[in-house]
Amino acid sequence: MAEVNRMITLASRPLGLPTVSDFELVYSAVPSPGPGKVLVRSVYLSLDPYMRGQMNGACRHARPFAIGAVVGGRAVAYVVDSEDPSFRAGDAVEGMLGWQEFAVAPARELRKIDPGLAPISTALGVLGIPGLTALFGLMDICDPRQGETAVVSGAAGAVGMLVGQIAKIRGCRVVGVAGSDAKSAWLLDELGFDAALNYTADGGFEDRLRTLCPDGIDVYFDNVGGAVTDAVVQQLGMRARICLCGELSQYNLERPEMGPRWLGQLIAKQARMQGFLISGHVERFSEGLEQLATWLEEGKLKYREDVAQGLEATPQAFIGMLQGKNQGKQLVRLSES
Amino acid sequence: MAEVNRMITLASRPLGLPTVSDFELVYSAVPSPGPGKVLVRSVYLSLDPYMRGQMNGACRHARPFAIGAVVGGRAVAYVVDSEDPSFRAGDAVEGMLGWQEFAVAPARELRKIDPGLAPISTALGVLGIPGLTALFGLMDICDPRQGETAVVSGAAGAVGMLVGQIAKIRGCRVVGVAGSDAKSAWLLDELGFDAALNYTADGGFEDRLRTLCPDGIDVYFDNVGGAVTDAVVQQLGMRARICLCGELSQYNLERPEMGPRWLGQLIAKQARMQGFLISGHVERFSEGLEQLATWLEEGKLKYREDVAQGLEATPQAFIGMLQGKNQGKQLVRLSES
Repeated sequence: MAEVNRMITLASRPLGLPTVSDFELVYSAVPSPGPGKVLVRSVYLSLDPYMRGQMNGACRHARPFAIGAVVGGRAVAYVVDSEDPSFRAGDAVEGMLGWQEFAVAPARELRKIDPGLAPISTALGVLGIPGLTALFGLMDICDPRQGETAVVSGAAGAVGMLVGQIAKIRGCRVVGVAGSDAKSAWLLDELGFDAALNYTADGGFEDRLRTLCPDGIDVYFDNVGGAVTDAVVQQLGMRARICLCGELSQYNLERPEMGPRWLGQLIAKQARMQGFLISGHVERFSEGLEQLATWLEEGKLKYREDVAQGLEATPQAFIGMLQGKNQGKQLVRLSES
Repeated sequence: MAEVNRMITLASRPLGLPTVSDFELVYSAVPSPGPGKVLVRSVYLSLDPYMRGQMNGACRHARPFAIGAVVGGRAVAYVVDSEDPSFRAGDAVEGMLGWQEFAVAPARELRKIDPGLAPISTALGVLGIPGLTALFGLMDICDPRQGETAVVSGAAGAVGMLVGQIAKIRGCRVVGVAGSDAKSAWLLDELGFDAALNYTADGGFEDRLRTLCPDGIDVYFDNVGGAVTDAVVQQLGMRARICLCGELSQYNLERPEMGPRWLGQLIAKQARMQGFLISGHVERFSEGLEQLATWLEEGKLKYREDVAQGLEATPQAFIGMLQGKNQGKQLVRLSES
C-alpha cells in the first residue's frame, strides 16, 4: 500500500506535566500485515491516565515507551487487510494499536467488536478495559453491600463514572468526588449519584465529606490518591474495603509527595486496601463484558465520552485529561480522509 | 479485707513519650467481690504498646484511660476470693485487671489458666493475646506459603518474635527487622530467623533490606510503621499481603508524621494491606490457643520475657518498651509480700 500513515511518537520524557513538545507527529508508509497479522485503520484512540507512567524511563506496572517510538495505547479500528483467517476487512476490532492512524497487530491480540451492540467507541469505555476495571475492582475488592456508603474519587472519569453506577446497582449510597462543580452536577443529575462534591472547592474537603457520609465510609474506590484519599481514610467505617485503582494526583510528580501517615486508621477500622490491575483478571473478561452489556442494555449504566478531533489533537487532549479537564471517557476521533 | 491495695493511676495525659510523672502510685483498701465477681491478686502485668493510645484523650480503637483512674491492662493473677461458682481461691486467671496488685473483676471476663501447661506468665504472651495476634494476623491476613519471603517489623517484640517463628513453621524465608544488634543476633541465633537486620544501624536500611530479600517481599507483618514500612513497600512482590498490626513508631507523636506517598506501589504489585485487631477474632480464641500450645509443646515456638520487678517499676518499664528497650514480651512481676 502506498498510503501515508501518521503517528505520534514520544520525543522526550516529560518532566512533570507533559507538554506538546514532548510528542512529535511523524509520517511513515502504511505497513503490510505479515502472516497471522492484521492491518487496521483506527477510528478512536483511548487516552488513559496510566499511560503517563509509561512515558517515564521506568514504569512500575508496564513497559516504558521508547523515545522516538509511537506512543502506545488502546484504540478501536476497522480491519483493512487481514492475513489471519479470524478477521476480514471491515471487522471492527479493539487492541493495543498506539497513537497512529494505521497499525499492524497480531490477530491474537485483537478483540472483535459487535457494532450492533453499542457504538464501537464503547469498546474503549463501558464495554472495554475501563468497564472491566470498574466491575472487577469494585466487586472483587470492595464487595459492596446493600445500604453501605461507597465513595469514588475521579468519579467523573472513565472508570469512576461506572464504579458509582455499579455501586448503585448493588444498593449502596454513592458519593462521588470530582474536580469541578460541573462534574459534580453531572454525577448528581445524570448518573443518579446520591451525593457529589468538588474537592477543589473552597472549604475543608474533609468536613464536607464527613457531612455527606455521616455513618462512615464502607467502600472506597480510589482513582486519585493524595489529599482526597487522606480525607477518606479518616472516615472509614469498620471493616471498610478500599480498591486502589489509580493515583492520578501523583502521576506528574518528579518525586514522591509527602503526606500524613495514617496506617493506624486502617488498624483501628480493620480496613482492607488492595491494589488493582486489570491484567490480573484477563480470564474473566468475557463474563465481565457480558454483565456490562446487560446493564447497558437495561439502561442501568450511562456513560459520557469526551472526544477530541484528529490525531494531531491527541497530545493536548492527553495533557488535559491529566489535568482533569475531561468529563467522562477521553477519546480521540481520527479524521477519515 | 483490711489489706492495702497499691495501684498506678494516670496522673496526666502524656505529651509525646510518657514520663514517670504522668503516673502516680496510689494506695487504697482491697475491695471485696460482689455477686458474680472475683477478687484476684496479680502476679504479672502485661505491658503492651497499644496502651499508649489509651493514655491520650481520644483513642482510635479503645476507650481512653481516665485521669486519676488505675491504668488498664492485662494481667495474670491468682484468685483470692470468689463469689462466682466458676472460680475458687487459688485458680490462676488472666484478664483486664489493670496496673494494681489486687483487682475485682466479673467472672465472665476472666480466663482460667492451666499452670500445668506452661508458666502462667505465658498467658500474657505466647499463650495469650500476643500469641493469638501473631497467629490470626499472620495466617488470616498474610496467608504465608512455602518458599515465600516474609518480613516482620518489631521482630523481637511480644508479637513479632512469634510471627517470625510461625512463618518459619509455614515454610517461609523469614527476615526480622529489629531496633538493635543484640535483638538481631537473638532472632538469628535463638529463634532461627533466616535473616535479621537492625534498622537503626548505619547505612541505607532500604538497600540492606533489598540485599536480604532479593526475590521481593511476599508477606509483611507490621508492628512499627514509619520508615521501616516505607522501605518494605518499595520491595513488595506481586500480590504481596501486609498485616498492619501496630505502628509503634507513631504512638508518641503529637501530630501525624509525614511520609512519602507510596500507594502506587500497592497498585503495581496488586498488593493487599489490612488492619488487624484481635477483637475481631474472639470466637476463635480456643482454637488458636490450642494450636499455639501444641507448637509450644513440640518445641516449635520459643519465647523470651523481659521482666521488670515490682509495681513501682511499671511506668519506667512501659516507657522503656515504647523506646524499644525490651527484648521479648515486656512484663512486670509483682512482689509477693
